[in-house]
Amino acid sequence: MAQQSLHDDLIVFDGLIISDWGPEVFGAMRAGGLTAANCTCSVWEGFRDTMRNIGAWNGMIRAHSDSLLKARSTDDIRRAKAEGKTGIVLGFQNTTAFEDRLEYIELFKDMGVGIVQMTYNTQNLVGSGCYEGRDSGLSDFGHEVVAEMNRVGMLCDLSHVGPQTSRDVIEASKRPVAYSHCLPYGLKAHPRNKTDDQLRFIAEHEGFVGVTMFPPFLAAGNDATIDDYVAAIDYIVNLVGEESVGFGTDFTMGYGAKFFEYLNRDKGYARQLTEIWKVEFPDGLESVADFPNLTAAMQRAGWSETKIRRIMGENWLSLLDRVWTV
Amino acid sequence: MAQQSLHDDLIVFDGLIISDWGPEVFGAMRAGGLTAANCTCSVWEGFRDTMRNIGAWNGMIRAHSDSLLKARSTDDIRRAKAEGKTGIVLGFQNTTAFEDRLEYIELFKDMGVGIVQMTYNTQNLVGSGCYEGRDSGLSDFGHEVVAEMNRVGMLCDLSHVGPQTSRDVIEASKRPVAYSHCLPYGLKAHPRNKTDDQLRFIAEHEGFVGVTMFPPFLAAGNDATIDDYVAAIDYIVNLVGEESVGFGTDFTMGYGAKFFEYLNRDKGYARQLTEIWKVEFPDGLESVADFPNLTAAMQRAGWSETKIRRIMGENWLSLLDRVWTV
Repeated sequence: MAQQSLHDDLIVFDGLIISDWGPEVFGAMRAGGLTAANCTCSVWEGFRDTMRNIGAWNGMIRAHSDSLLKARSTDDIRRAKAEGKTGIVLGFQNTTAFEDRLEYIELFKDMGVGIVQMTYNTQNLVGSGCYEGRDSGLSDFGHEVVAEMNRVGMLCDLSHVGPQTSRDVIEASKRPVAYSHCLPYGLKAHPRNKTDDQLRFIAEHEGFVGVTMFPPFLAAGNDATIDDYVAAIDYIVNLVGEESVGFGTDFTMGYGAKFFEYLNRDKGYARQLTEIWKVEFPDGLESVADFPNLTAAMQRAGWSETKIRRIMGENWLSLLDRVWTV
Repeated sequence: MAQQSLHDDLIVFDGLIISDWGPEVFGAMRAGGLTAANCTCSVWEGFRDTMRNIGAWNGMIRAHSDSLLKARSTDDIRRAKAEGKTGIVLGFQNTTAFEDRLEYIELFKDMGVGIVQMTYNTQNLVGSGCYEGRDSGLSDFGHEVVAEMNRVGMLCDLSHVGPQTSRDVIEASKRPVAYSHCLPYGLKAHPRNKTDDQLRFIAEHEGFVGVTMFPPFLAAGNDATIDDYVAAIDYIVNLVGEESVGFGTDFTMGYGAKFFEYLNRDKGYARQLTEIWKVEFPDGLESVADFPNLTAAMQRAGWSETKIRRIMGENWLSLLDRVWTV
């Protein structure tokens, strides 16, 4: 297929978008041919504030029902493709919204929360994050959380999770788990990146790797190109095979310094966890609207149509089928 | 001094009482000649429910102002002694009430919360408890909590805290810390009891040990006598010296099976953490009203008046002076 017609035909699934949700982002989703995405609606928020975020999402999906639908199942995602809409998978980047209540997990699942990261950068009740001084592994309560997420069919995301906690979740979970948005440590040594061993370990346990495009975590930094991104995806494909890989951009659209400060401090306000990076996305991949250029770069790299279909979204759907079907 | 007149003259400080607060308990406090006590008002509760508990305490102290006063300082405790009242030191057995907000610590201090245990049996945002499978030590956020407790003058209690987290708190704290209610592992091997090394370690760091009377954690179990309790106190005095030791009974008055179930499950409702013990307190030390019998047992053991004065309360006051004076 020709470049644009192939992209138009793809299931395009983004494993992680965290943006200032509104008409501009929704327009970019449709312009980019985005079939569905894991849309963050909780980072440091507790139960109540997360409920408000979900309430706001329900209102936005109603107001933009010509272009959005809530995706609770892979059938919903396929329906989004058929109807020319974007499916919104609600996702958390933390388990703080669960607070100390196991029964909240099912309540959130009923509202359309399909993907939840176990920790965000630091330690919570469940386990440790990738910037915590000591990673204690999955707590005893964390084991109960994983079991409940397994029961209701909610994907455990390990992107910002510490290495020991990640290993524990991979071993404890009875369903496949994922790094929804990460880069390889083999290309750049950074605590947020995953080593070859970590990437192999998750894949050996039926798990999944979504590759992110965050220039500071690539060898070329802000000089990285869209082809460097495709090469990073290939690095991981070579480790784990082309059926266990997708992408998760981590696109932040519409947010300024205040939001990055919120992300970069423990619990949204306490100590600063990392340097604040100056981030410049590569030409041609600066927005959710630019996904056709990603498909083009894969074609330029000589990927087969099958591989492109898989990495752009089919693999994500296959994973979610296995996790969400209970 | 004769037995009863000595007891009447003592500062009697109980390092830990957790009871169904009301007129019956308050009457027992006065009958036992209790000068002041660390009274638990939060175990698994979060911010809001703990606020309600403190609100209820304020109402009870107002309603019983003939026999109770709120003790925010050691001067308040000495005033309670002079006025024939019992000073109520509000205390938490967990940091769950802080939730994820460092600034709540000072708010609670302003309300009279002077003693807070870092964890209760399991892992929380601060560190791990003595029944957690793995003790990860003090979290990075936990270090911030200790620093803020130091700043506002709030005692860090380690009784139900895991060994590594306890060690970390002892090392991180710029003020003395305490086991408010514990027994020696040297007399009975139990994860809730403290080893000789642990007891020496806290004392070497200017810390404090309150000895509890909980028969299941003593060698004789429910056959333990009040003299066995005095012997357990002496075991610890022999390790750390008579100026670093007090008592903390852990008396639960008025509560039934439902409350023990709440204590015994993670977060008050999740997995069961320990066996539910059948507890029989020794004859003569079955209630807060029985403290004169404890003084008598110390006299029977041949303790000097100075030693009795110290262990019964003066040591606690000296510790609180050092921790609360900012």
